[in-house]
Amino acid sequence: MLASELNMQLACDKHKGFTLEQLAQRFGGEVVGDGACSIHGLAPLDRAQPQQLSFLANPKYLAQLEATRAGAVLITCADLLKVKNRSACSFLVTPNPYAYFARVAQCFAAASIPQTLPGIHASAVIDPSARVAATASIGPQVVIEANAVIGERARLDAHAYIGRGVTIGDDVHLFAQVTVYHGCTLGARALVHAGAVIGADGFGFAPDFNGDTGEWVKIPQTGTVMIGEDVEIGANTTIDRGTMTDTLIEDGVKIDNLVQIAHNCRIGAYTVIAACAGIAGSTVIGRHCMIGGAVGIAGHLTLADRVIVTAKSGVSKSLSKPGVYTSSFPAIENTHWNRNAALMRNLDKMNARLKQLEAVILASQNKQS
Amino acid sequence: MLASELNMQLACDKHKGFTLEQLAQRFGGEVVGDGACSIHGLAPLDRAQPQQLSFLANPKYLAQLEATRAGAVLITCADLLKVKNRSACSFLVTPNPYAYFARVAQCFAAASIPQTLPGIHASAVIDPSARVAATASIGPQVVIEANAVIGERARLDAHAYIGRGVTIGDDVHLFAQVTVYHGCTLGARALVHAGAVIGADGFGFAPDFNGDTGEWVKIPQTGTVMIGEDVEIGANTTIDRGTMTDTLIEDGVKIDNLVQIAHNCRIGAYTVIAACAGIAGSTVIGRHCMIGGAVGIAGHLTLADRVIVTAKSGVSKSLSKPGVYTSSFPAIENTHWNRNAALMRNLDKMNARLKQLEAVILASQNKQS
Amino acid sequence: MLASELNMQLACDKHKGFTLEQLAQRFGGEVVGDGACSIHGLAPLDRAQPQQLSFLANPKYLAQLEATRAGAVLITCADLLKVKNRSACSFLVTPNPYAYFARVAQCFAAASIPQTLPGIHASAVIDPSARVAATASIGPQVVIEANAVIGERARLDAHAYIGRGVTIGDDVHLFAQVTVYHGCTLGARALVHAGAVIGADGFGFAPDFNGDTGEWVKIPQTGTVMIGEDVEIGANTTIDRGTMTDTLIEDGVKIDNLVQIAHNCRIGAYTVIAACAGIAGSTVIGRHCMIGGAVGIAGHLTLADRVIVTAKSGVSKSLSKPGVYTSSFPAIENTHWNRNAALMRNLDKMNARLKQLEAVILASQNKQS
Repeated sequence: MLASELNMQLACDKHKGFTLEQLAQRFGGEVVGDGACSIHGLAPLDRAQPQQLSFLANPKYLAQLEATRAGAVLITCADLLKVKNRSACSFLVTPNPYAYFARVAQCFAAASIPQTLPGIHASAVIDPSARVAATASIGPQVVIEANAVIGERARLDAHAYIGRGVTIGDDVHLFAQVTVYHGCTLGARALVHAGAVIGADGFGFAPDFNGDTGEWVKIPQTGTVMIGEDVEIGANTTIDRGTMTDTLIEDGVKIDNLVQIAHNCRIGAYTVIAACAGIAGSTVIGRHCMIGGAVGIAGHLTLADRVIVTAKSGVSKSLSKPGVYTSSFPAIENTHWNRNAALMRNLDKMNARLKQLEAVILASQNKQS
Repeated sequence: MLASELNMQLACDKHKGFTLEQLAQRFGGEVVGDGACSIHGLAPLDRAQPQQLSFLANPKYLAQLEATRAGAVLITCADLLKVKNRSACSFLVTPNPYAYFARVAQCFAAASIPQTLPGIHASAVIDPSARVAATASIGPQVVIEANAVIGERARLDAHAYIGRGVTIGDDVHLFAQVTVYHGCTLGARALVHAGAVIGADGFGFAPDFNGDTGEWVKIPQTGTVMIGEDVEIGANTTIDRGTMTDTLIEDGVKIDNLVQIAHNCRIGAYTVIAACAGIAGSTVIGRHCMIGGAVGIAGHLTLADRVIVTAKSGVSKSLSKPGVYTSSFPAIENTHWNRNAALMRNLDKMNARLKQLEAVILASQNKQS
Repeated sequence: MLASELNMQLACDKHKGFTLEQLAQRFGGEVVGDGACSIHGLAPLDRAQPQQLSFLANPKYLAQLEATRAGAVLITCADLLKVKNRSACSFLVTPNPYAYFARVAQCFAAASIPQTLPGIHASAVIDPSARVAATASIGPQVVIEANAVIGERARLDAHAYIGRGVTIGDDVHLFAQVTVYHGCTLGARALVHAGAVIGADGFGFAPDFNGDTGEWVKIPQTGTVMIGEDVEIGANTTIDRGTMTDTLIEDGVKIDNLVQIAHNCRIGAYTVIAACAGIAGSTVIGRHCMIGGAVGIAGHLTLADRVIVTAKSGVSKSLSKPGVYTSSFPAIENTHWNRNAALMRNLDKMNARLKQLEAVILASQNKQS
């Protein structure tokens, strides 16, 4: 048994499960089939067992559904109409089976995520001027500097570092080794994974050289980072403080691991940013955008709402319309690639040859006419 | 009011400001206008108020200057001659307004950056054989191993880890959670942001396989990292120790967040490296280079002084001349991109068709002549 | 003298060196020349001294060998036959000189790597239910949560964080500031560098929006990370826990710095992944693959055994055959690049022009025939 399935198993032992009817009462939707069907866990269609709930989010998996052993399946009304054998399992009909599945999964998973009790570990170092809510949980060796404010039920795991004057909202969870620099603000329910760094200095220097001698003069980064509500930030991601203004991450933004967000950026609400992406300074990204993995976005650009940039693409101009944007190639067999890449670097010559042929043909046609 | 502007406000309250003449005495330059003009903060041209100083570094913002409410503006002599209305504000004339602005900003910002007092926090763990200057400030839960040396006025924030035999120069500032492995050296005034790792093992293994069985034999990484003076290193950046020699970062180098510098590299003085760049092993980069964000540079290469590599480009051959180098594309509308990318992968076929046409035309011309 | 060479020097002082015959007895191979030749350290051919051992792994360095001052050289039998002057130094003949060199180097280097004694530092915080082997070394301010198990001779450096129920195998070494989330498993002899994060939540959300309102519903990440034996993980690398299954890193995998491995991935045994690479969710990579620096691999793909992806390439389709795959360009002079890149974005137009010429020629040929 996989560790994860064991976790689910543990969760269901604790919960003693739900009936399908109980789930419908709690999360909405309509039962088609046996409302008394007992659900003790969740699984994908192809692995689900009779006491497990599964989901169909994409009709291309209808064949898997027809063969599933799941006790019940979350499904849209439209897809249910396409199911041939509706008696093999029960259904819970909802307009968004995947989101429904996620909510039920959260319920089952709660038991498998280590919980902490309110209180401050004896080894934590907290400045007397900091205000920590009585319901907060402060782990071992956390450091909280002067005038910081920690909200209700906030949870700070081991070695988290909270700089001077930081505000941590209610129900925020910082995993181990998170650093929040002085003056930054995290809204309610932020989830920040281990090693993330919020509020380090932006990368700004004024060159002052005379030939080979001189220096890069540091431009003080006097802004902060302001993070809205319901934001998730991945492990080892870095979000820099602003130069003379603040870096802003709006509500509901989700950021993956190892992402870099430079000073003065503004990330619009509900935008998601996949791992290894980098966004240069002062760029403004709209709401509901999707930034693919390892995408690079240059500085001082504006991206409209609902822009999608596919993985590994580079954005060097503002994108004023919603849509899907790309500049990446799929890897192919190396010698084939190299042959064509060499031609690509000389497209100007190929274009010149084509022009010359066109001229010859045109001259010849003129002569004939 | 933005938090950053509040910071500036606080700074100016503390300083009670400067007159323009006082700034000129301290930082140089010539006052044109009212030397008694009182400066309490800094701001960009379009946001500056009468008691604030702004700057014009690029003549394309001359229109903003004509409309500014700033009390005074830093400007070059050449640009001042282009200003139509020279009585709307005062001027401080300097050959490098941006660097001047940065220096004044540092002065104002000093008050907004949390300061620490000399001394060692009770929770720090310091080996008795380590030598820590009396003027150094060692934060909570810092760990300093045997024989390390910490310079005058050095500041190590919470959870910093200093390995055995490390040397930390005078006035170095390590932010929280920085790791410096055994034997590495940081020169004076280095600024290292949270989560950076200096001196981890380089990635070196000798394959010893016989078909499917065998192992990657680890090559011990017995060098160190030597970092010069006035270097800044970004959050979660990694700089590996050398294999049998040292990895060298020369004076005045500035490195952004999430940058990888592999074993045995040498980065020349005053070079800047933007976020998410990666430099493979044993590559030597010259002085005054500018490496763009997410650039990748292969191993065992040499880049000349003053090479500029634009963002997201890949360098796979040595670059022996100064200049600007590129291999990245801007993202465009996805279907347009895909159509052309498919053709690019078959440029060899297009080239063959072009050759055939050229042959037909040539044959036809020969026949006619 | 370079610090690294000093290290070697110290190592050889401690060991008082080996004779070539002693090395052959310990590591295998056949001595050709003076078996009593005394070896006190290692160096590359061009820097080696008479008491040092060097190696020839590639016949293109034969000229260096002919000029070397090394006391002895590791060499294959085939290459030894190509050496003109076999009396200038001694030889140790082995089928894999580089791996042999690595093993001897490990022996010399052992003395230069700081060692720790078994025991638990007074400042560590360890849950009473955790089981820590008596031979393990637990550094300052390490935190170990409930029910974790730490194997024999395991070494956890300062500030490492071990979540609830984690299993750390025998002889594992975690450097400073490593985070291992609850439930994860590390096999014997894993080496994990500073700042690495193992087991953070995968990036999974179900969209539940109605126009502009709604939310990304978090999909609980209830799997773990299972890491095999003899795995090395670089500094600040992140490996996410699985969603409903586990993320798997098989035996002998070597991962460089700042690599992202997303939820549910499986990395086959002995595969190596260079720095800054990112692998999206649920992708399965075969055994003995080599993933270059800054490579991006999309989610839900399968890569066969022995696939090589060159640096900075992007993989967006499964690769079912071993071989070398590429999609990256080398940086060239910027204006040259831009001219051709603009043409590349309009290859469809160039193709249309070519087609038209072909049609004209064909029509003209038909007319003539």
